[in-house]
Amino acid sequence: MNHGGDIWTYGKIGELVDFSSNINPLGYPEGLLTKILEDFDSVHRYPDIQYRALRGHLSEYLGADPENIVVGNGAMELIDGILTSVKRVLIPVPSFVEYELRAHIHGLEMVFLPMDKQLRPMLDIWGEYIRESRDASTALVIANPSNPTGYVFTEEQMLELIDLCQISQVELILDETFVEFTDVNYDTIQIASVFGFEGVSVIRAATKFFGIPGLRLGYGVTSSRMKAFLDQRLNPWSVNALAEIAGSVLFQDRKYIDQTKQYIRKERSRMLNALSQLTFLKPYASDANFILLKLHSMTAVELFEGALTRGLLLRTCDNYRGLDHHHIRVAVKSRSDNERLLQYLQEVNQIGK
Amino acid sequence: MNHGGDIWTYGKIGELVDFSSNINPLGYPEGLLTKILEDFDSVHRYPDIQYRALRGHLSEYLGADPENIVVGNGAMELIDGILTSVKRVLIPVPSFVEYELRAHIHGLEMVFLPMDKQLRPMLDIWGEYIRESRDASTALVIANPSNPTGYVFTEEQMLELIDLCQISQVELILDETFVEFTDVNYDTIQIASVFGFEGVSVIRAATKFFGIPGLRLGYGVTSSRMKAFLDQRLNPWSVNALAEIAGSVLFQDRKYIDQTKQYIRKERSRMLNALSQLTFLKPYASDANFILLKLHSMTAVELFEGALTRGLLLRTCDNYRGLDHHHIRVAVKSRSDNERLLQYLQEVNQIGK
Repeated sequence: MNHGGDIWTYGKIGELVDFSSNINPLGYPEGLLTKILEDFDSVHRYPDIQYRALRGHLSEYLGADPENIVVGNGAMELIDGILTSVKRVLIPVPSFVEYELRAHIHGLEMVFLPMDKQLRPMLDIWGEYIRESRDASTALVIANPSNPTGYVFTEEQMLELIDLCQISQVELILDETFVEFTDVNYDTIQIASVFGFEGVSVIRAATKFFGIPGLRLGYGVTSSRMKAFLDQRLNPWSVNALAEIAGSVLFQDRKYIDQTKQYIRKERSRMLNALSQLTFLKPYASDANFILLKLHSMTAVELFEGALTRGLLLRTCDNYRGLDHHHIRVAVKSRSDNERLLQYLQEVNQIGK
Repeated sequence: MNHGGDIWTYGKIGELVDFSSNINPLGYPEGLLTKILEDFDSVHRYPDIQYRALRGHLSEYLGADPENIVVGNGAMELIDGILTSVKRVLIPVPSFVEYELRAHIHGLEMVFLPMDKQLRPMLDIWGEYIRESRDASTALVIANPSNPTGYVFTEEQMLELIDLCQISQVELILDETFVEFTDVNYDTIQIASVFGFEGVSVIRAATKFFGIPGLRLGYGVTSSRMKAFLDQRLNPWSVNALAEIAGSVLFQDRKYIDQTKQYIRKERSRMLNALSQLTFLKPYASDANFILLKLHSMTAVELFEGALTRGLLLRTCDNYRGLDHHHIRVAVKSRSDNERLLQYLQEVNQIGK
């Protein structure tokens, strides 16, 4: 399985700059280590099997009722769990590769939804598929922002999607793992809370935005019906005790949250601008902390291998259904790391001329 | 779901002595905190999706080929994963409650195997069930030592069981989560390595023996066929990065390992001896770090509630199929904690006379 973040296969830790996984480049919140040291003895007991304190912290952060909040070992454990409640799933193309893999494992029928040439959703066509799914035990799983494109749904599109799914009784799984990196001007949690999340699950993660992929912490807001289903379905204690206590530090660190948002906004714009001046590739418009590139005059593997000799790990995308060996993805990293990448790409551009 | 270790429901941390979960009372190995501090920045990256270093440490500890080693978020994630490879499962009665729960979730047919009055396996009858299962995509899941009784299979019984399963093509899942607490005189890993673990998976955990239930680390030794199945089936990165790096400390701490074995051996014997002198209950023979009790003149809930007022959390067992409201389980804890429990039980015994 080709995944981002696999520095273990390609080199030694500390020798590679990892542009292949989309983790907050500011590191993790300052208070995290102190809190974990303070409560380290929690490794010697089981986590609360109901994660009451953790769900309480999430409740404040998200403005949602704790009774609608679920936690998991990364966002995918929750998405995977919800997928086991249906027989059929609609998946946009391209999407994060795990959706299709997990659907395959659970023996679900898969229906693929098209994107346009700019890899934006074609809601007219999606609407037909959604309406056809009525009474067929179907889920639609979409990422907002999309991965690997970084496309954010407009509020109008999002309301239309939710409405379509509600009318057609399609279970909507909104994977908002990267949403805090965007400047989205609506909150799907507030939108769906109006009808108690019936038929809509909003899944997010501390993993990416709070820079702790190693600690494993995903969460979601969902209906009490789906929460009861997941409480039974997921393996017990799948969130470890250190991730559990981290919840009392992460979600209230406004300084870290604001700094991250400001930094990503500015740096993404700077990178998109620099990338758009290169002639051998085209960046797709992104509102997230990563950018998908289409290469005109070389393959993704050629660029991947060239970058690797400079200590830069990129993400080839040919295992994304709907993309090919000309697509490659890069994360927004620290200013100096981004400079190294841009400089390398400018050199490649120069040679290609 | 009634589980051990649920101090969160019954009281405040630090106020309850938890006899309901069977965790090493010596705490965790000394080097663990130092190692985690040293490598704390590993929370900022993904674990190795193949867990190469961790499987290497386990390989040395277990004397098994890394290619046969799998890791998971506790032993149950691995057992659960293997259960999804079959259609039918044989489960001794009583057994750890999660086997039945997971089998139910996956829609497996369940067949229950009897124990005798002393809650020891009735291998003659088991043999009939196993032989009948040929060609039926069946697993047999057994715990060694059994939970909640602490019964350890003799070497002769174990060889017979493995042989029966091999001949009948029944997938044997050996849950040896607590095996290091016993004085078992054979090693199922060495036995099954002879035929490459084909049809046999030995599942263990760092959770209990190394005193880190909060850190979540199970592992197993299995065939390369089953390993490939689990590598695809389990959610990626289910073992967190701190559990991953703990692997370089835990399994080589001979001093901690030996001290634990010595302590448990002596203290279990002392407790069994004291318990056998009480007239209102009967302890079942145990080779593990926990003891199942049968109460003659009161219910488990009555004893549970009485103990709770003294700050002692016991484990009622009426949600174990085959046990009833007269069964209750206690862990072997520190000397002073055990004294508090024994003293309380002696008082109850006195009153009952």
